[in-house]
Amino acid sequence: MATQDLASWVSTLRYSSIPPSVVQAAIRSFYNWLGCAIGGSNHETTKRALKSLTPFFGQPTATVIGHALVTDPSHAALLNGIASHVHDYDDTHLETIIHPTGPVASALLAYSEHLGAQNRNVSGQRFITALVAGIEVECKLGLAVFPNHYDLGWHITSTTGTLGAAAAVSNLLGLSSEQTIHALGIATTQPVGLRDHFGSDTKSFHVGRAAQNGILAAVLAHGGFTASENAVEAKRGWVKVLGAGSDSLAEQLSTLGKVWEVEKNSFKPFPCGIVVHPIIDACIQLHDQALKGCEAEIESVHLEVHPFVLELTGKKTPKDGLQAKFSVYHGAAIGLALGKATPSEYEDTVVLSKNIVAVRDRITAEIDKDIPADAAKVKVKLESGKTLEKHVEHAVGSLKVPMNDEQLKEKFIDQAGKAIGHQQATEVIEIAQTLAEVADVSIIAQATSKS
Amino acid sequence: MATQDLASWVSTLRYSSIPPSVVQAAIRSFYNWLGCAIGGSNHETTKRALKSLTPFFGQPTATVIGHALVTDPSHAALLNGIASHVHDYDDTHLETIIHPTGPVASALLAYSEHLGAQNRNVSGQRFITALVAGIEVECKLGLAVFPNHYDLGWHITSTTGTLGAAAAVSNLLGLSSEQTIHALGIATTQPVGLRDHFGSDTKSFHVGRAAQNGILAAVLAHGGFTASENAVEAKRGWVKVLGAGSDSLAEQLSTLGKVWEVEKNSFKPFPCGIVVHPIIDACIQLHDQALKGCEAEIESVHLEVHPFVLELTGKKTPKDGLQAKFSVYHGAAIGLALGKATPSEYEDTVVLSKNIVAVRDRITAEIDKDIPADAAKVKVKLESGKTLEKHVEHAVGSLKVPMNDEQLKEKFIDQAGKAIGHQQATEVIEIAQTLAEVADVSIIAQATSKS
Repeated sequence: MATQDLASWVSTLRYSSIPPSVVQAAIRSFYNWLGCAIGGSNHETTKRALKSLTPFFGQPTATVIGHALVTDPSHAALLNGIASHVHDYDDTHLETIIHPTGPVASALLAYSEHLGAQNRNVSGQRFITALVAGIEVECKLGLAVFPNHYDLGWHITSTTGTLGAAAAVSNLLGLSSEQTIHALGIATTQPVGLRDHFGSDTKSFHVGRAAQNGILAAVLAHGGFTASENAVEAKRGWVKVLGAGSDSLAEQLSTLGKVWEVEKNSFKPFPCGIVVHPIIDACIQLHDQALKGCEAEIESVHLEVHPFVLELTGKKTPKDGLQAKFSVYHGAAIGLALGKATPSEYEDTVVLSKNIVAVRDRITAEIDKDIPADAAKVKVKLESGKTLEKHVEHAVGSLKVPMNDEQLKEKFIDQAGKAIGHQQATEVIEIAQTLAEVADVSIIAQATSKS
Repeated sequence: MATQDLASWVSTLRYSSIPPSVVQAAIRSFYNWLGCAIGGSNHETTKRALKSLTPFFGQPTATVIGHALVTDPSHAALLNGIASHVHDYDDTHLETIIHPTGPVASALLAYSEHLGAQNRNVSGQRFITALVAGIEVECKLGLAVFPNHYDLGWHITSTTGTLGAAAAVSNLLGLSSEQTIHALGIATTQPVGLRDHFGSDTKSFHVGRAAQNGILAAVLAHGGFTASENAVEAKRGWVKVLGAGSDSLAEQLSTLGKVWEVEKNSFKPFPCGIVVHPIIDACIQLHDQALKGCEAEIESVHLEVHPFVLELTGKKTPKDGLQAKFSVYHGAAIGLALGKATPSEYEDTVVLSKNIVAVRDRITAEIDKDIPADAAKVKVKLESGKTLEKHVEHAVGSLKVPMNDEQLKEKFIDQAGKAIGHQQATEVIEIAQTLAEVADVSIIAQATSKS
C-alpha cells in the first residue's frame, strides 16, 4: 500500500494545495542549493567528473551550472548534484541528516530545462510543486528507515534522494498514479551511496547519481516500463532490504501533506558537518567581539563539546581542505583567527598556513555529555592573562536560530561570486528568490552560465 | 586489503596467464550471451527502454545489438544488457545463481566498440582477458556474500555485476592497480537490483544498469576520480552493508586465478528459472519417445519435484509469457505437447492456447524432499490406460550434462534467427566462436545489426 499511497499523493499534488509557508521553505531550499551548485562548480571533483564524461554527452538541452556548457539533462543533473554537495555546504533535514534538496533539485532543474527546450516551459510554481513532492517523499522515507539504515552504512541523502528525484520528475511530467508507482519502483532498485566513501570524490557523486537515477526511473515509467507495484513496502522491497530493521513507514506516510518536511530543512552557515557548527559560531563571535587582529596573543583555547563532535570531527592535524572538514580544531582556529568559515577558509593553503596551524595547535577539546548537539562552550586564554568565554546555546543555522533570508543571500553571493563574479551572482539570487513568479525556470539555470 | 588484492589481480591479468580451458569457457559464455542479446533485442521490454531513452543518446560509437542503430557505449550497454536477460535464457553460475556474462559482456562489447571507433581496436584476446577478469571478480564476490545477500532480497546478478563490469572495463582500459581500486570503489556505491522486481521489466533492467554502472565507475576512475580504498571490505563497505551477515571474502579471494569461476558457468537450454529445467527435460524426452502428436490422449500427468520448484514456480494458471516462466505446469505442458521450450513457447499466444491449457490443467505436482535440484520424475497416464514414466537424474544444462558446442550453436541460431534471420545469425555465431582470433571485436557487434 505504501508505494501506492506515495504515488497517489505525488501524482495529485498541486501548487494550490501547498501552504504558503511551505512554498517559502521550498524557495529558500532551492536558492540555497543553487548557490552551493554554483559555488562547487569549479571544484576539482566536479571538474574531474565533467572532463571524464564529456565524450558521452547527449543532445545539449540543460545547463551545467556555473560553466559555459549545455549537455543532456542526465549529465547536467549528475554534475550539478556533485557541485551542490562538494563543499558540504548544502542543507540538512535534522531528524534524518538528509541533505534533501541536492538530489531532487539537480534532477528537476535539468529536466525542466530539457522540457523548456521543447517549448514545454516549466513555471516556477510547477517547479516548486515538484520540488516539494520530491523532498517530502525523500524525507518521509528517510524517517521510515532512520537510524538503522544510516548506521549500517548507507548515505541516506542519496539512497532516499533517488526516490525523491523520481517522485519530483514524475510530478513534473504529470505521470499518472499508476505510472508513478512504476517510477518509484524503478528508483527503489538503484540505491546509490555507501558512507565508506566519505572523504573522497565519491561522496558528492552520490548526490548527482541519485538525481540521474531518479530521472531515469521517471522517464522509463513514462514510457510504460514496469516495476514491482509494492517495491517500497514489500517483503523484499526497499524498506526491508535497506532499512536494517528500522521501519516506521506506515507512521511516516500517515503525515504526508500534513507535516511538511521541507519546513524542517535547515541551511548550513559553514561548509562542514553540522556538529562543528556551534563551535565555529562561538569562535566567530569571540573574534568579532575581542580577537580581531589579536590572534597571535592567544595562549590556549579550550572547547567543551557534544560527544558526536570528537567522534566525527576529532582530526587534530588535517592535511588538506577535505580533512579539515572533519576537524573541530580547524573549525575553531579559522573562527578565532579569521572570523569566517566559508569554502575559502577550507582551501588547502589556509588549512596549512602558519597562523592557522599556530592557533590550531593551542586548542584542546573535551566532551561534555550534558551539552545539547546544537550548543558549545569556548574558553580562550590570552598571553596577557585575560580570559574570554562564549557559550552558544543554539548555533546559527539550527532550527532555533535559522539563517534568515539576508544571511542566505550573503552566503549565496559569497560562494557564487567566486565562481561567476559578484554581479552575476547577485543577479541570479535575485531571480531565484522570485521563483514563484518565474514563467520559465530555464532562465535561472541559464543565468548561472559563466560568461 | 580485499579491494587492493582484487584491483591488483585485475590490473595485472594477461591473456597468457589464462589457461586454455578457461579461455574456452569464456568464449562459450560470450556467444551464449550474444545469442541471448540478439534474441531479446526485439522483446517489448527492450523496445520500451530504447524508445524512452532515445532522446538522451550520445555520440554514436556502439551498436544496439540486433537493431540498425548505433548509440553511445553507456546506452548500448544498458539496452544490450536488458535484451540479454529478458528471456531468462542466459547463463548460470550455479553456486551463486549469478547470471555472470550479462553485466560484464554488455559493458565490455559496447566499450570495446567505442574504443574501436577511436582507432583503438580491441582484439578478441584482450576482450577475453577483460571478460574473465570481470566474471571472476563478480563470482568471487557473489560467493563471499551468498546466501544471505540473495535471501535478504538483492538480485545478486546485478549487485555483483556492477563490480564485475567495472573490473572488466578497468582491465580493458589498462587502468593501474591504484586506479582500479577507485573503479571498484565507485562500483560498490551503485548496487542495483532488488528481487522484488522479478516478473516485471525492471528485472532485466538490473543487468543493463549494472553494465552502465561498471562503465561509469571505470571511466571516472580513469579520469582520477577518487573513492574509498577499502570499499569492498571496510566496516561500512560493500560486503558488510549488503552481505547481511554472509562474509567469506578472504576465503574466496584466496582462490582468485586458481579456481576459475567462469569454468563453472552453465547455459540454459530453456528460457526460464533453472529449477524447472529437469521437468522440461523429462517432458521433452517423453514427447520425443512416445507422445509426439498424441498429446490429446493424455489423461493425467504427475510431477515429482525438488521443494524449490513449487516455491519458485508453482503458478497454476499463468496469464502471459512472463508469468509462465514461473509455472512448472506450463513448462511441463509445452515439453509434453510441443517437445520444445524456447522463447517461442513462452509467447503469450502459446501460454493461452487451447491445447497447452488443456494439457496444463491435467498436471499435478508433488514435492519429493529427497530428490536433488537437477533431477525430476514425470508420470503420464494416457486415456488408453497406458502409462509412461521418465526419471531425469541430471537435467540437460547442468554441470553433469552441460550443453555442448553444437547445442549452444543451435540455441543461438534458433533465437537469433528470429530477430535477424537464420543466415545472418549463422554468420554471427561463426565469427563469435572464433573470438580468440578476431583482430577487432567491433565486427562482432556490427555483424548483429539488423539489415
